[in-house]
Amino acid sequence: MQFELTKEFIENLNVLVDNKDANKVLEHVEGLHAVDIAEILDEQSTEEAKAFYFLLPDELGADALIELDEDVRERFLKEISSEDIAEKIIDNLDTDDAADLIGELSEEKQDEVISHIEDIEHASDIIDLLLYDEDTAGGLMAKELVKVKIDWDVATCIKEIKAQSEEVEKMYTVYVVDDNDILQGRISLKKLLLASDNKKVKDVYNDEVVLVKVDAEGEEVAQRMDKYDLVVIPVIDEIGRLLGRITIDDVVDFMREESDKDYQMASGISENVESSDSAWVLTRARLPWLLIGLFGGILGAQVIEAYEGQIKIHPEMAFFIPLIAAMAGNVGVQSSAIVVQGLANNSLGLDGIGKKLFKELLVGLINGAVLGTLIFAYNYFFAGDLTLSIIVSTALVSVIVFAAIFGTLVPLVLDKYKIDPALATGPFITTVNDVFGLFLYLFIGYLMYAT
Amino acid sequence: MQFELTKEFIENLNVLVDNKDANKVLEHVEGLHAVDIAEILDEQSTEEAKAFYFLLPDELGADALIELDEDVRERFLKEISSEDIAEKIIDNLDTDDAADLIGELSEEKQDEVISHIEDIEHASDIIDLLLYDEDTAGGLMAKELVKVKIDWDVATCIKEIKAQSEEVEKMYTVYVVDDNDILQGRISLKKLLLASDNKKVKDVYNDEVVLVKVDAEGEEVAQRMDKYDLVVIPVIDEIGRLLGRITIDDVVDFMREESDKDYQMASGISENVESSDSAWVLTRARLPWLLIGLFGGILGAQVIEAYEGQIKIHPEMAFFIPLIAAMAGNVGVQSSAIVVQGLANNSLGLDGIGKKLFKELLVGLINGAVLGTLIFAYNYFFAGDLTLSIIVSTALVSVIVFAAIFGTLVPLVLDKYKIDPALATGPFITTVNDVFGLFLYLFIGYLMYAT
Repeated sequence: MQFELTKEFIENLNVLVDNKDANKVLEHVEGLHAVDIAEILDEQSTEEAKAFYFLLPDELGADALIELDEDVRERFLKEISSEDIAEKIIDNLDTDDAADLIGELSEEKQDEVISHIEDIEHASDIIDLLLYDEDTAGGLMAKELVKVKIDWDVATCIKEIKAQSEEVEKMYTVYVVDDNDILQGRISLKKLLLASDNKKVKDVYNDEVVLVKVDAEGEEVAQRMDKYDLVVIPVIDEIGRLLGRITIDDVVDFMREESDKDYQMASGISENVESSDSAWVLTRARLPWLLIGLFGGILGAQVIEAYEGQIKIHPEMAFFIPLIAAMAGNVGVQSSAIVVQGLANNSLGLDGIGKKLFKELLVGLINGAVLGTLIFAYNYFFAGDLTLSIIVSTALVSVIVFAAIFGTLVPLVLDKYKIDPALATGPFITTVNDVFGLFLYLFIGYLMYAT
Repeated sequence: MQFELTKEFIENLNVLVDNKDANKVLEHVEGLHAVDIAEILDEQSTEEAKAFYFLLPDELGADALIELDEDVRERFLKEISSEDIAEKIIDNLDTDDAADLIGELSEEKQDEVISHIEDIEHASDIIDLLLYDEDTAGGLMAKELVKVKIDWDVATCIKEIKAQSEEVEKMYTVYVVDDNDILQGRISLKKLLLASDNKKVKDVYNDEVVLVKVDAEGEEVAQRMDKYDLVVIPVIDEIGRLLGRITIDDVVDFMREESDKDYQMASGISENVESSDSAWVLTRARLPWLLIGLFGGILGAQVIEAYEGQIKIHPEMAFFIPLIAAMAGNVGVQSSAIVVQGLANNSLGLDGIGKKLFKELLVGLINGAVLGTLIFAYNYFFAGDLTLSIIVSTALVSVIVFAAIFGTLVPLVLDKYKIDPALATGPFITTVNDVFGLFLYLFIGYLMYAT
């Protein structure tokens, strides 16, 4: 029942497509969902994909395109004429998907495509949506929804809903508005189904409705839908008029993208890449952070160079350079990750910044005490060098405490100034902590050996 | 409209609770959702929370408990008698939430609570659900659903749905079964609402339904619902009987937990912790990975010690120890992160393992070439030391290529043997790559200086 794509499946399909045998092709993909078709298009060459696409029913093809990765879709749409995009694709999409897809085209092609949309209302809805920033409620919403007037009775509602619902593929909630289209509340299909025909909407509707303003950030929309376990959320303008609705599937995609982005930032990847992207795309996404690391490494080299004389006399100091640098990096990443995740999930609690730093100090001291004792014991018993033991463990504790506090502080400060706190994770925090940790270690060594 | 919790709000509430003034308390929290109440309970002391909880309407209180963090809820439930848990909480929860909550109690208390549930059917549904592993479809599903028989007509359906729907808070889809309860398909409320009363179910239902088996992993459920943009998915047993349904809100929570877990693993945090947890909990989650790092650091120290004589003669070799170690770590984390994310999102594509490793080799070579050239130029022009320049850049390129391939291979192998590939991210991969990179660097130096 669950479709599993194989190389064989695609090879067989390509043969059928090459033969231009539409019936056989449709038989081959029978029962597949749009998202399965997208997986196939993704694995085909652009030529094959185009030939296959033009054999599909328009609606299935359009839905499949929406499920494609943005870069694959972009490459594909370059091959399709504006007229075909308007008539085969846009006409078969909901306004939100249509606007997203048109937004990805060049300015010139956008105008061409829009001029070819036959349904004027559909076109004007799409133009409206194109005005909103992609990552706001306006950019996420669709215009398709079912609404009823607050002074109607249930029978009128059901008649009106029948008329409206042809346009709306998935209907979860019916919105209740007044004569000026101001949102008043909602009424579930279940309630309508169970209410008697002559009841008035105003007697059965629910006036408590969680909503978002059209200019709300996508993050806020996601958090609110997640918090209140909503499947759909209405979007209103400044004066409360109902503009559209956002469904959970779009928000789940948004959430996944956001958490993927945070994860990639923490791992030193600067663009949204996938294992299946080309070596060149993968390199481009990875090189920037590695350059930061290289720069940090050069700084580290200069710090050590400053203590070259000392290392000549005490080469054993060099043994623990990687340990100190690694621990500084690890602790910093841990601390910043906890803050970044807390900010993303809105779960930082009510404690002020001072209390948070104090807690990190405590965590750093406990971790430092445990690890410092262990490394002291190792050095003392295995190397039998008391001075070195003291230097390494003192430096380790200091570095851990510093890295913990620094790792907590930086993302909090970035967030305060509206900069993405995830920037503070991964290679950046590692590099800064590495260099500072090295300096601290060598300086403590210098002080100890000088006395 | 959106509730923002403040310290003041809680202080005022606590005064009202202390006065045992139920009406004033309810007035203070009027219009708040269960999840807002949960936020309040989370910020109160256990004593205050308990006093506040017993002033709330049972249903609101029960729903709020479900929204609490597991550890807070556990602490809270210890203070509540088994009888109160059964009558005030379990009776007001859906079976899936009820089973989750009971599952968190001690064996002994579980039996006590279950014996106090008055509704026998509710109790037996919960006992059924307790049998399933928490992270499977069975553990995620609820027993509450609305189903109709395939040979009924629409009018009978609507009558039956009215009767069944009292139990089911959120009704998205009506399932269609045969006389043996075998799932045949589904029918949307919209379709029922629009169909005429004398139509038969078998003429209007949809026989294509994406479903999961009861023993499917939670991950599979999440991927399927996400892939097909589902709000609810039915769960069947081995012979196709309809057992329950899973709603998107539970799956969104599950997905968030999974991606949080991966993120934490990559950041070296071994338990699910939040910034608001105690310093002790935070330490416990962080120490294990730091111990691995410490162990790696000691190994690194031994590697360097083996080359002590060489560092005494060429202390400049020590300068680039942190650079080599850091770059090995960074590249390894990048590579493993891309694989882990690809596995989590099921987006690795159809390429075999050999092709993936070859691509990593390519990425490693390009990155290595760029970074190796830069560090060569730096060393040659600023330090004027040709031998060192060659050693550092050769080592850097080798280390980057090795780390890229190793970072790709390890999570793929772990996944093959059904071990969580996220284990291969963060401090583990960093530590292994650090130590190996050091060895490579010093060994190349040894060879160069020996010739």
